[in-house]
Amino acid sequence: MQMEERGRIARDASIPLAATDGETRNAGLLAIAKGLKENTAAIIAANNADMARSQAENLGAPLLKRLTFDADKINDVIQGIHSLIELDNPLGATKMATQLDEGLDLYKVTCPIGVIGVIFESRPDAFIQISTLCLKSGNSVLLKGGREALETNRILCKTIQDATRTAGIPEGWIQNLETREDVTAMLALDQYIDLIIPRGSNDFVKYIMNNSNIPVMGHADGICHVYVHEDADLKQAVDIIVDSKTQYVAACNTLETLLVNEQAAATLLPLLKAALDNKEVRIKGDAAVRNIISAETATDEDWKTEYLDYILAIRIVPSLAAAIDHINTYGSGHTDVILSTTEAAAKTFMTLVDSAGVFWNCSTRFSDGFRFGFGAEVGISTAKLHARGPVGLDGLLSYKYKLLGHGQCVTDYASGKSHFTHLPSEEDCPI
Amino acid sequence: MQMEERGRIARDASIPLAATDGETRNAGLLAIAKGLKENTAAIIAANNADMARSQAENLGAPLLKRLTFDADKINDVIQGIHSLIELDNPLGATKMATQLDEGLDLYKVTCPIGVIGVIFESRPDAFIQISTLCLKSGNSVLLKGGREALETNRILCKTIQDATRTAGIPEGWIQNLETREDVTAMLALDQYIDLIIPRGSNDFVKYIMNNSNIPVMGHADGICHVYVHEDADLKQAVDIIVDSKTQYVAACNTLETLLVNEQAAATLLPLLKAALDNKEVRIKGDAAVRNIISAETATDEDWKTEYLDYILAIRIVPSLAAAIDHINTYGSGHTDVILSTTEAAAKTFMTLVDSAGVFWNCSTRFSDGFRFGFGAEVGISTAKLHARGPVGLDGLLSYKYKLLGHGQCVTDYASGKSHFTHLPSEEDCPI
Repeated sequence: MQMEERGRIARDASIPLAATDGETRNAGLLAIAKGLKENTAAIIAANNADMARSQAENLGAPLLKRLTFDADKINDVIQGIHSLIELDNPLGATKMATQLDEGLDLYKVTCPIGVIGVIFESRPDAFIQISTLCLKSGNSVLLKGGREALETNRILCKTIQDATRTAGIPEGWIQNLETREDVTAMLALDQYIDLIIPRGSNDFVKYIMNNSNIPVMGHADGICHVYVHEDADLKQAVDIIVDSKTQYVAACNTLETLLVNEQAAATLLPLLKAALDNKEVRIKGDAAVRNIISAETATDEDWKTEYLDYILAIRIVPSLAAAIDHINTYGSGHTDVILSTTEAAAKTFMTLVDSAGVFWNCSTRFSDGFRFGFGAEVGISTAKLHARGPVGLDGLLSYKYKLLGHGQCVTDYASGKSHFTHLPSEEDCPI
Repeated sequence: MQMEERGRIARDASIPLAATDGETRNAGLLAIAKGLKENTAAIIAANNADMARSQAENLGAPLLKRLTFDADKINDVIQGIHSLIELDNPLGATKMATQLDEGLDLYKVTCPIGVIGVIFESRPDAFIQISTLCLKSGNSVLLKGGREALETNRILCKTIQDATRTAGIPEGWIQNLETREDVTAMLALDQYIDLIIPRGSNDFVKYIMNNSNIPVMGHADGICHVYVHEDADLKQAVDIIVDSKTQYVAACNTLETLLVNEQAAATLLPLLKAALDNKEVRIKGDAAVRNIISAETATDEDWKTEYLDYILAIRIVPSLAAAIDHINTYGSGHTDVILSTTEAAAKTFMTLVDSAGVFWNCSTRFSDGFRFGFGAEVGISTAKLHARGPVGLDGLLSYKYKLLGHGQCVTDYASGKSHFTHLPSEEDCPI
């Protein structure tokens, strides 16, 4: 089938899907969990085929690990679906109510976005997490996973389609794309698709943004900072810096540049170097850093670099204000941390640093949908519109204004015959 | 000054502006109101110069009327500023709080978007409304008004700059652009500008979207519908249709296509025709309409047309479902109305019609920030992300996640030494 036709089908399905009640969508989620359980053997067989082909193609070990979808991982995603079922129905919630006049009531009510296109990496669990988040929030979804997971994603999609059909979810709400040509065609379907979520490298996200008129909500660079203020607890600082840098180096919420107040540097840096040496982290520092510890030379280019590796850039700064300025200049607006024992310094930092996550005395690595308690995430947004930071169900919602009247015309308000009351109300929308 | 430098200045001002408290921004608003009052004579003189030049250039009467900025209009905008001062401080509001673990508390807190570029029509009152909404919400703003209002906007900008400087608002937060070249240059400044709001025709908004990497929140077409269900109160229907079509024909929330259930058509259309003839509205109808009343021929092209004129397209539909399908196919997702005496029909319509405004038994013309009680609006969005429908202060906000810890590292949660509690909280962020 041509992509345009598939986009139209997804859009057509999104209309009745938006009108399903929470119980029906939960029944669909339950049917998916059941289908995954029943099809476990076939899913593992498909995944084995993907693994064998990818091994033959010399895919690296970390990627092979992400591609693996065994009984344990299947159980994990089934568990995740049961958690999602427990969450409140996100649709039809009244976010604001105002009596415009007697018998003329306005309600702002949550609704799905519509049709979402997701382009993601090779983890088959992502296929399940994204599609179930979309179902819970009433959105149609077109998914394009990594080429390596072709067979696995194919059977996962069929399992989900079969399961949700029996539960009364409109057919066509979920579709699996398999080729780059499909993706290119999808990016042109702005009449049918409301949002594209690309997950991958910064360059990839930029490419998608530059090649589509559809709004894009993407990860971009995560150039995250820790700033050590002059009054920080230095023992705690070493632990947090090591955790932020090494707990998982390939993540977007990993520390890339450490800023140290000049009053803390002489004491902190030797302690820190010992701890980072233990973890085999290469240190790049400015001249002031290299006066205190041995390190490679850091240049301006380093402040702009997301290493995603066991490398840490360190700069000594004269003040809190200089740290904030560095972060707002070179950062990517992802997650930035201040280590300090005074609330005033933390408050200044958290107010002036223009990032999705501003943390005080804890690791950058907490910036994550699961750790934030969102159940799951579709990604972490560094954009400032719609959704910022880890994006869970909330980021998959729009809203509409429902106005319930009794024959009111604007002419009467313009002429002064009628008057607006504009009374805020706590009432939920009755229909 | 070059636009890039001006963008950088606006961005630099946006950081301390985001940290001002509500009282300071209200003091800025009060100073603007005072400055407008004191400069009334000079503002009127500047506006007279704009009017004289525009008359010499044969600007049409409706546009001249919009360009006029006399003592009455100045008093109106001053009144509007006082209303805006009364509104709650929109910044620093805690929208969500979760205890991730004991001593590790997450808060979702409202903050400004940053720097907003607005391109708008020739109404000088829009200059004041937009800039004061931006100040109240802590955003820097670059404004490009209509060429016709050049002298007026220049003195308005200077008045606002002088007033807010004395009130402690960071200099550079507001800047007035005067040329198309400035606009072109602004559209390229994605490193400094977070959002572009174009106000104008659909083609103009599309042009802006196609020529900038900055997110755009724009008006687009308003192809608004009224659907008359078989059980509608027909007397009420005539009033609402006439109001929706004629109360102000050039607005985006004006009725363009009327859909009539075939069971209501024979009775409604003759009554309606008499009322529309009174208002000199041209009627275009499909064949079924023309079997009942005399009308010009409507084609498929009419269902896609925003007339912004005394013209109404009418189509007879066999069912509620057909009406919904027509609106979701040809509509622009702006505002659509059902006239019906049964709640079930209204509920179906309001759930399945995918528009920013879905109204029951009232005029399309209520779709407006002032009428919705938002105080003012920066525009009406037909997009489904970030802000939908009339956009007031809320649409000028982003949020950040503040996480307050005591040395927590992710390693301890990954190893099972520590456990997330994920307890929802009602607490406001303490810093």
